[in-house]
Amino acid sequence: MAELYLEDFTVGQRFTSATHRIDADQIKAYAAQFDPQLFHTDEVAAQASFFQGLAASGWHTAAITMSLLVKSGMPIAGGLIGAGGEISWPRPTRPGDVLQVESEILAVTPSRSRPERGMITVKSETRNQKNEVVQVLTSKMLVWKKP
Amino acid sequence: MAELYLEDFTVGQRFTSATHRIDADQIKAYAAQFDPQLFHTDEVAAQASFFQGLAASGWHTAAITMSLLVKSGMPIAGGLIGAGGEISWPRPTRPGDVLQVESEILAVTPSRSRPERGMITVKSETRNQKNEVVQVLTSKMLVWKKP
Repeated sequence: MAELYLEDFTVGQRFTSATHRIDADQIKAYAAQFDPQLFHTDEVAAQASFFQGLAASGWHTAAITMSLLVKSGMPIAGGLIGAGGEISWPRPTRPGDVLQVESEILAVTPSRSRPERGMITVKSETRNQKNEVVQVLTSKMLVWKKP
Repeated sequence: MAELYLEDFTVGQRFTSATHRIDADQIKAYAAQFDPQLFHTDEVAAQASFFQGLAASGWHTAAITMSLLVKSGMPIAGGLIGAGGEISWPRPTRPGDVLQVESEILAVTPSRSRPERGMITVKSETRNQKNEVVQVLTSKMLVWKKP
């Protein structure tokens, strides 16, 4: 894909990523390092928890989403640099889920003080193989103008 | 620490986590898996990038923040279950940074429909050893009432 500059983005534009299949081993490995709670690390304990079965850490879903965006989701020239945004997890990511990210450009805003750059606002929905949304991320990302 | 129920939380209450020192190897290992961009994986290339040096993925900072919250930051009974929130990264996390999370309770909201539970709104600032804020996360978390 060609690398995209601020001038290449328009409101309503959409991007679809490749897919990533998550399994129990990935869920447990991530959780052991960053979110060591039983509903992320132990199938049996997870059954009795709020999640009623093993669920990925929301931050793991966010990490896979970022990975899909970087590798296939949105080829921003100079890389994907996020300033922040809003994130929600309407339902858990489960072992065996095949995740895919669909992104829509909500706003394209040239910088007032920095003529060489701007920001885009992007809504990225991460869906599983049943087309259920497991994460919604609305983020602002730095984008350069054409040199 | 005692496990905390909804009745134990009050607006303005604060919690301080343990610390975690991040180094270049951790930054590169996380990035290789989840955010493979040169400013997160290669010191030399990072010098010429927006970040002007190796920087952790924002999602890595979020993951370390979650790890600190789970292990030492806020002992919620039944675990830390977030529904989502707002996240921002005012400055990058760098190799050698020692991260610590300070959380403040912004709201305590019993559920109208579910008498056994409620939500708390928590602002968690992740700071480095110079007391600079590298991440602000304002999240809603599920909390159970006392059984």
